[in-house]
Amino acid sequence: MPDPEKMVAAVHAYVSAFEAGSADAVAALYAEDATVEDPIGAPIHRGRDAVRAFYAESMTTGARLALEGPVRISGDYAVFPFSVHLDYGGGAKRIDVIDTFRFNDADEVVEMRAFWGPSNMHGF
Amino acid sequence: MPDPEKMVAAVHAYVSAFEAGSADAVAALYAEDATVEDPIGAPIHRGRDAVRAFYAESMTTGARLALEGPVRISGDYAVFPFSVHLDYGGGAKRIDVIDTFRFNDADEVVEMRAFWGPSNMHGF
Repeated sequence: MPDPEKMVAAVHAYVSAFEAGSADAVAALYAEDATVEDPIGAPIHRGRDAVRAFYAESMTTGARLALEGPVRISGDYAVFPFSVHLDYGGGAKRIDVIDTFRFNDADEVVEMRAFWGPSNMHGF
Repeated sequence: MPDPEKMVAAVHAYVSAFEAGSADAVAALYAEDATVEDPIGAPIHRGRDAVRAFYAESMTTGARLALEGPVRISGDYAVFPFSVHLDYGGGAKRIDVIDTFRFNDADEVVEMRAFWGPSNMHGF
């Protein structure tokens, strides 16, 4: 089983990596064969290289993340509520999201799923 | 696809059903063949009757739920952060939880997973 403290640390590192605009730092949290589904129903990014490319693209928006409550640690999952803040096109925008991170025994994220939709987008 | 407004309404009905201590009202939100995993890794309750029995047992603790942020609606999922409040054994206790509800086209919950663990339990 993954280490709960390292799982929480990975979530904080994820937020910090966005703050730093580093897709490499985000990709380093993922396993080589990781999958990312963001949001639910979107095409799934498979493998660390595809994951890195997805985040590099996401970060061109200047998105910043803010945790909105405690990280829930349950089995091999870390699940956390947060908001995404964007500032382009003449106004502040916010998206309310919950991510599930599933970890492997090496404390790497093997599966990420991001839960948000149109009703969670504000200021667009 | 399920109706996003009915999905949000189901989450609020779930919180209200706990307030009323009604396992029947909770079970009515679920599909006949629903599954409940609470927390992750625990034995899965299968079918509405097993789900009702699980909630009837849970409610003997007098647990009350409080939403801790907006319901995220993503595809056929409603995902929401909340806290569980218990008052027994001489003190107030809190558990921070995130549930995922997956819905069918009849707007019934077909799969519930509750994400929480020891690090989310306070006052025990």
